[in-house]
Amino acid sequence: MELSEFELIRRLGRKIPPRLRLPGSLTDDAGALKTVVGHAVMSADVVVDGVDFRSTAGNWEQIGRKALAVNLSDLAAMGAAPVSFTCALGIPKSFRARSVERVYHGMMRLARQQGIRFAKGDISRSATFFIAITVLGSTGEKPPIARSGAKPGDWLAVSGSLGGSFKAKQFEFMPRIREGRFLLEKFRPHALMDISDGLVQDLGHMLRASGAGCRLQLEAVPVSAAARKAHPGQIRAQLQSALSDGEDFELLLAVAPAQKMGLERAWKRRFPGVKLSWIGRFVSGKPQVKFYDHEKEIPGGRFRQAGFSHF
Amino acid sequence: MELSEFELIRRLGRKIPPRLRLPGSLTDDAGALKTVVGHAVMSADVVVDGVDFRSTAGNWEQIGRKALAVNLSDLAAMGAAPVSFTCALGIPKSFRARSVERVYHGMMRLARQQGIRFAKGDISRSATFFIAITVLGSTGEKPPIARSGAKPGDWLAVSGSLGGSFKAKQFEFMPRIREGRFLLEKFRPHALMDISDGLVQDLGHMLRASGAGCRLQLEAVPVSAAARKAHPGQIRAQLQSALSDGEDFELLLAVAPAQKMGLERAWKRRFPGVKLSWIGRFVSGKPQVKFYDHEKEIPGGRFRQAGFSHF
Repeated sequence: MELSEFELIRRLGRKIPPRLRLPGSLTDDAGALKTVVGHAVMSADVVVDGVDFRSTAGNWEQIGRKALAVNLSDLAAMGAAPVSFTCALGIPKSFRARSVERVYHGMMRLARQQGIRFAKGDISRSATFFIAITVLGSTGEKPPIARSGAKPGDWLAVSGSLGGSFKAKQFEFMPRIREGRFLLEKFRPHALMDISDGLVQDLGHMLRASGAGCRLQLEAVPVSAAARKAHPGQIRAQLQSALSDGEDFELLLAVAPAQKMGLERAWKRRFPGVKLSWIGRFVSGKPQVKFYDHEKEIPGGRFRQAGFSHF
Repeated sequence: MELSEFELIRRLGRKIPPRLRLPGSLTDDAGALKTVVGHAVMSADVVVDGVDFRSTAGNWEQIGRKALAVNLSDLAAMGAAPVSFTCALGIPKSFRARSVERVYHGMMRLARQQGIRFAKGDISRSATFFIAITVLGSTGEKPPIARSGAKPGDWLAVSGSLGGSFKAKQFEFMPRIREGRFLLEKFRPHALMDISDGLVQDLGHMLRASGAGCRLQLEAVPVSAAARKAHPGQIRAQLQSALSDGEDFELLLAVAPAQKMGLERAWKRRFPGVKLSWIGRFVSGKPQVKFYDHEKEIPGGRFRQAGFSHF
């Protein structure tokens, strides 16, 4: 790095338009925000070079965007609107200031689109390049939606389509903030979360948190075009990809039977470009997934273990 | 690491007493907090192995404590009370789960002492060990205090004593939260910040933000016992250490002349164990430090350049 810490901080600061910053974000020990009355949520996600992305391609804008996008997906998963975020960077000596500026640039473009303001940054030398972001969001007068409220009888729904996402859209996916807000405001599903490590693995988290089981209808799982393209003609591999690949960043929700039709209609009107698929029902019993093809139960062992690990 | 990501997360979760967590912090995509009406601040600080600490000594609790403490110092620097925090860890393959648990343990002990609640954690594999923490704080009905409000004529004051802190107290220092709260509530100094990279360097930031100069009285600078011990008999080296060593985490403030006596009295009553030293006056003119020994100006070139860099 040809610049000192402070020169780099100054240069990065210039990447952030004033209306995207909290007062004090560049000059004080903390960014200042006037809090809204109501409920807030706070989450953190770190992405590390070689684990969550690869910087070798020089795709700096994309990496910066992704680091913020995975955090925004956590806000969407609570039904929250984005408020502000912090960003800590670990930067190897070999990195050029221009590259780090491009990381910020990609991040700030998404911040503008999603209306989230930069609260504070920190940088440190590090042998491994990483971006650690924390987001603060608000659900206003209504409390956020946990993943723990699914009840036997509820329908399981998922937004968008699944599988092959690391390859197809890890850098382009749009966090489902609008969809999460809409769900919280209009329908308040019993449970809500995002899928980041694969449908079956993340559904397992919802089941354990809710103390319910789930009957998953394999024929209803929305297999993405990317998953189909990656395994031409191999239906089984396509499905496996939809069940266990990471990086989908779609919403998974538990919906009371009485709300199913209303949500389906309202969703179609509001989000004509985004699928909403009904992929199963919650059942009482052990928190585990049972796999069905229409009425026939499929031994699930081969589906169950998979899922992305950050370790 | 002998554990999977989820097993490790579960074990770390058990390190956090329930009353120290926000609802959802271990189970949902974000921790949920009911926000207070009023002003909030948000800050982030990352510490990296080999740069901000060395893990080789196996002092895991101390490292965890420090990672949170430097962040709390940023809240103190705004006059804010701690509310909640997130923590992202990068963990090398070679690390044992037990070590990471001890990091959490040290962090949580300080969290309990300072009344800040865990909002959300994230971990990722990383060749370099790092801890990235973000803190949310509140100043209630009063806005936070920036570092930019110092006016010519104001007195410059500093809490505690300076120098040799990396060696003496980098792991033990207590963030000046109570002192910062007291200042905001009772006196509202014109400017406030913490000293983390050395007095002269950080004072420089205050001067540039405020658009004022400063006459620093060297004879009044509170040289720490650690700085004296490190340079026995060498008055000049002791002073240099107090002016430029990093890791002091003391408060630096600009006080209107009319408030000086009142603050001095109230501070002594409230914080009998913590020094408050009046070390200079702000002056109009260029944002630079002029060094004085009583009435005699000292060429400052040799003092000015020093200060800790994270690069």
